[in-house]
Amino acid sequence: MSEKILNTIETPVDLRQIPKEKLPQLAQELREFIINIVATKEGHLGASLGVVELTIALHYVFNTPDDILVWDVGHQAYGHKILTGRKDIFHTNRQLGGISGFPKREESKYDTFGVGHSSTAISAALGMAIASKLNGDFSKQHVAVVGDASIASGMAFEALNHAGDTDTNILVILNDNAIGIDPSVGALKNYFTKVKLDNAKEADNIFEALNFNYSGPIDGHNLMLVISALERLKNVSGPKVLHLITTKGKGLRQAEENQVVYHAPGKFDSLTGDLAPKSKEILAPKFQDVFGKTLVELASKNEKVIGITPAMPTGSSLKFMMEVFPERAFDVGIAEQHAVTFAAGLATQGFVVFCNIYSTFLQRAYDQVIHDVCLQKIPVIFCLDRAGLVGEDGATHHGIFDLAFLNCIPNLIIFSPRNEIELRNIMFTAEQGLDLPIFIRYPRGRGKILEWQKPLDLVEIGKATILTEGTDIAVLTIGTIIENALEATALLPLEQRKKFSLIDIRFLKPIDEVLLHKVFKKHKIIITVEEGTIVGGLGASVASFAAANGYKNKIEIVGIPDMFPEHGSIQELQEITGISVEKIKEIFQRNL
Amino acid sequence: MSEKILNTIETPVDLRQIPKEKLPQLAQELREFIINIVATKEGHLGASLGVVELTIALHYVFNTPDDILVWDVGHQAYGHKILTGRKDIFHTNRQLGGISGFPKREESKYDTFGVGHSSTAISAALGMAIASKLNGDFSKQHVAVVGDASIASGMAFEALNHAGDTDTNILVILNDNAIGIDPSVGALKNYFTKVKLDNAKEADNIFEALNFNYSGPIDGHNLMLVISALERLKNVSGPKVLHLITTKGKGLRQAEENQVVYHAPGKFDSLTGDLAPKSKEILAPKFQDVFGKTLVELASKNEKVIGITPAMPTGSSLKFMMEVFPERAFDVGIAEQHAVTFAAGLATQGFVVFCNIYSTFLQRAYDQVIHDVCLQKIPVIFCLDRAGLVGEDGATHHGIFDLAFLNCIPNLIIFSPRNEIELRNIMFTAEQGLDLPIFIRYPRGRGKILEWQKPLDLVEIGKATILTEGTDIAVLTIGTIIENALEATALLPLEQRKKFSLIDIRFLKPIDEVLLHKVFKKHKIIITVEEGTIVGGLGASVASFAAANGYKNKIEIVGIPDMFPEHGSIQELQEITGISVEKIKEIFQRNL
Repeated sequence: MSEKILNTIETPVDLRQIPKEKLPQLAQELREFIINIVATKEGHLGASLGVVELTIALHYVFNTPDDILVWDVGHQAYGHKILTGRKDIFHTNRQLGGISGFPKREESKYDTFGVGHSSTAISAALGMAIASKLNGDFSKQHVAVVGDASIASGMAFEALNHAGDTDTNILVILNDNAIGIDPSVGALKNYFTKVKLDNAKEADNIFEALNFNYSGPIDGHNLMLVISALERLKNVSGPKVLHLITTKGKGLRQAEENQVVYHAPGKFDSLTGDLAPKSKEILAPKFQDVFGKTLVELASKNEKVIGITPAMPTGSSLKFMMEVFPERAFDVGIAEQHAVTFAAGLATQGFVVFCNIYSTFLQRAYDQVIHDVCLQKIPVIFCLDRAGLVGEDGATHHGIFDLAFLNCIPNLIIFSPRNEIELRNIMFTAEQGLDLPIFIRYPRGRGKILEWQKPLDLVEIGKATILTEGTDIAVLTIGTIIENALEATALLPLEQRKKFSLIDIRFLKPIDEVLLHKVFKKHKIIITVEEGTIVGGLGASVASFAAANGYKNKIEIVGIPDMFPEHGSIQELQEITGISVEKIKEIFQRNL
Repeated sequence: MSEKILNTIETPVDLRQIPKEKLPQLAQELREFIINIVATKEGHLGASLGVVELTIALHYVFNTPDDILVWDVGHQAYGHKILTGRKDIFHTNRQLGGISGFPKREESKYDTFGVGHSSTAISAALGMAIASKLNGDFSKQHVAVVGDASIASGMAFEALNHAGDTDTNILVILNDNAIGIDPSVGALKNYFTKVKLDNAKEADNIFEALNFNYSGPIDGHNLMLVISALERLKNVSGPKVLHLITTKGKGLRQAEENQVVYHAPGKFDSLTGDLAPKSKEILAPKFQDVFGKTLVELASKNEKVIGITPAMPTGSSLKFMMEVFPERAFDVGIAEQHAVTFAAGLATQGFVVFCNIYSTFLQRAYDQVIHDVCLQKIPVIFCLDRAGLVGEDGATHHGIFDLAFLNCIPNLIIFSPRNEIELRNIMFTAEQGLDLPIFIRYPRGRGKILEWQKPLDLVEIGKATILTEGTDIAVLTIGTIIENALEATALLPLEQRKKFSLIDIRFLKPIDEVLLHKVFKKHKIIITVEEGTIVGGLGASVASFAAANGYKNKIEIVGIPDMFPEHGSIQELQEITGISVEKIKEIFQRNL
């Protein structure tokens, strides 16, 4: 067998030298390359496998990076990265110091816009298309590749609504695989299905209603078909949509058959596709499962309990409730804004609504939290998964702003459990009825308690917990980062250790002022530790409390510095941001 | 002439006793009632005049409040308020202690959901509709009244996408008057126009694509037609849309002819419709006009300058640039999310993008600010109008969270001008080129400088300004609230006044740490004053700075307490929130 074609490609300029008939072989090689590396290095698999042909076709037909290509979400852009100068470093994907798992402007001129959250690509591409027009460049094309789950999000609609009213050279590629991370939902998805069945015999397509030139649907794995469609559209001016039907996980049987698992499967056998065997070790549960299973428990006893997720049934483990009580558990699609106000509407009618949103995605519904929930004191129960550092997904996905952006809103409760049992108990407490909305914030990954399914117990709202009482230094923490503080003190000699009081503040709001007064009176030094921004979080609240009450104690605020942490393991990122066990120990020692 | 029918109506129960043929007379009376009161008490006029017939029809046909009615935005709900028990207090509309200018749950059981920001109604109504279904009530209807400008916003689309995939009794009334505050824009608006011209001869309507039963368009001022349409739809189960064509300002000639001005016209003659004569007094400019005119100046000299507004060309005064440079000034509709990322896309191509968003509406684009702009350090220039207390629009519209929710984001500059000249100069500075995005925050209303069109001057980034140097107490302010601090010190005896240093911090970020060190070293007491939440803003930053640097000075943080201020005049609200001249003077005296 001859040398691999892929080895001859450093950039798309090389790609464009290859005879068209050899491209299917390149697609095969690219797919294998992705599979081989992701099998051992982990990462997002299914999405990139689904767009191998599209990726080749786009860089083959268009003159990237002069023609502009924006990947929506971007976890499908592995092939793009490999074909645009990053083949040799692709094995560093998502590792500290390595390339990002998402397109990123700093990384390559081919990454025209940084992505990670969904549904931004059309807006960004439209901005670039308007720029070209203003620059007098009417030949350049601007391509946004958007999945069918992502295009149903409100922001994408806003962009389509604007783009359709322009004469810009924007091409939206609808990559329709009928799945996001979980299967797509909603009326638009049903409509796409109908369009597919009718094979575009619809007289008046929804995109045409928005003034887009629509073509498709076509088989997105038929490389020659995709190339000829793009070649045709390259010379069509104005806004246009190409509807591609693709299969997520294409080319790896298990990934095609089990698309949810193979979205980001962890390590697997690159030849057989089999997942790496699970450790036999009995592990403490994931926080998401504590949420998911506790919710089922609560919903079993209280028929008013509702669960809502914007497109994360698997990731949030709301799927457990969706299986048992499908009529009361809602996946509303990638629609955080709607999810929050929909939850508020339900709660006005006396339902007990658990709305589970990843911390980083709650940023999408900030106004709804303020305007629709808190202003009206509607007691929706928000469960914010993936709070704090999330690791390899990196800068776009860390949930480090929530403490600060929620803290300034009146009429809400902010709680972060230090362990699984606290999470269960606060969910139970909220289910029993609160006067205000509550935001329960917990991290990605596993806890430490094997025996977590204890009988449920009420949590007193606004009450902190003293874990150890010392003499000189009070350490105030919130959430699971307390583990690092505990380990850090454990590393100190006994005599030093006795100086430390360790307090789980639990509630950022209402903060336990009774305890804070005691703490400030008893200790010389106050150290706050949080897995969130040092601006506007626990530390800032404690400093403001001290100011308001005239305390002169030394206060040291430990948290995520004023920067966007990149990707890497959580431990690496904790080290960099100064909240690892070792760094906290150093801070403790410095204050002795 | 007989007694007025309107006088016989306390609640919709009374309304439903009236013979159908008398309803047009009631419509006439209701219209007059609205005009008479708004003419002297001010408020939103055009929107409510446009839905008089619809309002009567809805309460006549549906069994409100058991059948549920949600008004989107809610400034069109004056007729609703008058017919639901608030006729006698309607003259208190928007005044302190009076009724709110928007539907509000605390005010009436007929106000099923609090509104103010656009595009929330379908989500809320769908939540209520699902609740009814879960309660086994399959006859109840849930009505969301949404304007054509509002339905084009992403959140509304998310709700439609979900609702269309349910079998709930939701009725969306599309109140199509082709205008929001300014004329509607976008592809969807063009599509609606086409539908109107074809008079629903379209085979496949966009709502039908989303699985809604669509009827219309019908004349929304033909009361009998509207009633019969609603009576029919009352018995249609599942999601449905009724498309009404209405005229904003209907029934008052000038309001129909000049819809933008009569959206909220201030005082006018209820008989002639003429606006109250303008004061002959020469007034300092509105901040929005300083923005609008300065932008034209900058755009005249730099062809890379772009202006963007999400649906507020008049309110932001971007209209000045839209008139002179239409190809570079964009009204993207009620689409804050898109506006921000579209701005970012343009800025990546070297354009100098001014994106003007009201502070309260920036909450809608919080994730885009973090994820699309700041993370990528794209130097978009955000101009946040209506920051701080906005007065009569009330709780939904105050721009009091921006300092806090922006402060925790890395890679940005936050500036608030204390006067018109500072606003001009920071715009010029930003236009000259910055490495980071900047957020320029200024209030509703007028400044104080008549001669504001001074030559433009550069502002040094991160540099505070000392206005007066005193001996003991440093007052740090940000933005125009400095006027209150100045007036407060002016009320003090000269000897006391000498103790105060007055400092305009200008930049919340990067905060002037060099100056802060000097201030903390020189003064015993630090008082911070801001027109924003005391949580997470300037005061919290100063307290954190003191903690980080071991300063023991007394710090007093003055700002909006942890509450949602209601509606009232700005002066009244400043008094209530403790940032009026008088309150600040008291704080100053307390610290002497």
